[in-house]
Amino acid sequence: MSKRSYAILGTGALGGFYGAKLQKAGLDVHFLLKSDYEYVSKSGLVIESKDGDFTLTQVNAYNNVKKMPQCDVVVVALKTTQNHLLSQMLPPVIKDNGVVLILQNGLAVEEEVAKIVDNVSIIGGLCFLCSNKVGPGHIHHLDYGQITLGEYVFGYDPTGITEKMRQVANDLKHAGISIELTEDLLLGRWKKLVWNIPYNGLSVILNARTDELMSYVHTRKLVEQLMYEVALGSKSCGRIIGDSFIQTMLDYTVKMKPYRTSMKIDYDERRPLEVEAIFGNPLRKARSSGVDLPQISCIYQQLKFLDEKIRVENRQNV
Amino acid sequence: MSKRSYAILGTGALGGFYGAKLQKAGLDVHFLLKSDYEYVSKSGLVIESKDGDFTLTQVNAYNNVKKMPQCDVVVVALKTTQNHLLSQMLPPVIKDNGVVLILQNGLAVEEEVAKIVDNVSIIGGLCFLCSNKVGPGHIHHLDYGQITLGEYVFGYDPTGITEKMRQVANDLKHAGISIELTEDLLLGRWKKLVWNIPYNGLSVILNARTDELMSYVHTRKLVEQLMYEVALGSKSCGRIIGDSFIQTMLDYTVKMKPYRTSMKIDYDERRPLEVEAIFGNPLRKARSSGVDLPQISCIYQQLKFLDEKIRVENRQNV
Repeated sequence: MSKRSYAILGTGALGGFYGAKLQKAGLDVHFLLKSDYEYVSKSGLVIESKDGDFTLTQVNAYNNVKKMPQCDVVVVALKTTQNHLLSQMLPPVIKDNGVVLILQNGLAVEEEVAKIVDNVSIIGGLCFLCSNKVGPGHIHHLDYGQITLGEYVFGYDPTGITEKMRQVANDLKHAGISIELTEDLLLGRWKKLVWNIPYNGLSVILNARTDELMSYVHTRKLVEQLMYEVALGSKSCGRIIGDSFIQTMLDYTVKMKPYRTSMKIDYDERRPLEVEAIFGNPLRKARSSGVDLPQISCIYQQLKFLDEKIRVENRQNV
Repeated sequence: MSKRSYAILGTGALGGFYGAKLQKAGLDVHFLLKSDYEYVSKSGLVIESKDGDFTLTQVNAYNNVKKMPQCDVVVVALKTTQNHLLSQMLPPVIKDNGVVLILQNGLAVEEEVAKIVDNVSIIGGLCFLCSNKVGPGHIHHLDYGQITLGEYVFGYDPTGITEKMRQVANDLKHAGISIELTEDLLLGRWKKLVWNIPYNGLSVILNARTDELMSYVHTRKLVEQLMYEVALGSKSCGRIIGDSFIQTMLDYTVKMKPYRTSMKIDYDERRPLEVEAIFGNPLRKARSSGVDLPQISCIYQQLKFLDEKIRVENRQNV
């Protein structure tokens, strides 16, 4: 079995789930927690999963990266709204020549990490996961769980399949996680945005589930138009997303169970929204190539308004 | 004093207010009512107004156009969502060679009326009025009240100032209503949309007042972008709206008291929204000239979703 050690930065619905799977498979895993630190230190993690429930009665829990050992793989499982903390959090916990595995939504997060750490590999992971944190240290995994991995190098040039990717993929597969490898991380990220941009955005703005957006003719059409704008943005980065991929995403969503998107859950919980990673960065990437995405821009500005109102509320409630 | 008789189709916050002013000035006015018919027949109309309260203890009230006398001027003061009724309502009540005065928001409503009635003049009125119906036959006039009048001819060619416009304007002025005349109704209608499209649309979608939309930087910017798209639509009809007009509308709104738009009031009351008149018709006009307005289109599709949901609710509640 692998000797690689894992640090999980952000032990929530996503980081808690994948981290627990790794520990259950026998790997050496270290969890960073915030509000649940006391509880998880004493009681461990409970995973309720469609693939089988399990409990970890003892986990290595930390409330400060400086107390954590340096690890071979550092999994960034925070919301991107917390990424301003990474410059403080990453350097103490990553081994020289280690891997930063970024399990976040959106675009350009690897670029930000590359500015913080040297002499490490940066791997982006696109998670197709439906899970919620239902209580302290208590995670409910509802569906899916697959991760697509791709390595980042400067400028997002395609890397092919690298040795580091294989190593991390083997650990994750060993933990029962379905893994795909991509030679082109940037294409993978744009493809994920084809889904995330219309559904995350409109679900928040229109207070709607995916099935409602698809059953009304005008939002069904708007979703499709937004997907085509994402493909335009992708093209501005030299990555082609074909019509058939868009049609597949539409058909797939029609067949899905009614789904509350991750951004809608954040919004309902009055948490800051991942607007910049999912909307702002793609818009800026496209604009830097002279490409305007007016409907995504409209959605972005609407979300920024709603997000700002949440942040104002939260400041007032402190 | 004028001998012209007036029929008011739709005795709500707008039709009730202007109709009562005309009757108070001594004109012969006939009111069509629906839900308030019984009450107003007995008790008349109460106008609470910043320009002075007044009561009309007796009014000519009707619940059916067929019982109304034919009038010289028929004021269409329904919501545009009711315009499918006009083909039944207008012919019985309009005198030959009379005037249909359309006090509605949006674009292209005169074209629809022109298909219904012959041998009449059609005048469009752009109302800058802030009033609410607060109870049966009880109207609260909060602010403004000015009307800009322009005559419609086929194709919206500018008409200059016509004799019919002057006659109607004189009656309205005599009733204490501030009147402007425009030689170009279509330009007037597009100019009004510069305000209505961003503020009506975003106030509903984002659950916001005008002051909130203007105080957050991203919605402030989106409002401005939408205004420029309206100007593009206007240009596609050969009508030029300059930057300075847009800047004036922005400045004017910043200085306004916090305002709940008419569409937001309809939305909060779960009434059907005037989406087609204010958004759909301008989009179709521009598209017929090959001009795409992507951000207005985005807002339109969002509003159609919200409007459809209201209509579904209302059908279920019948």
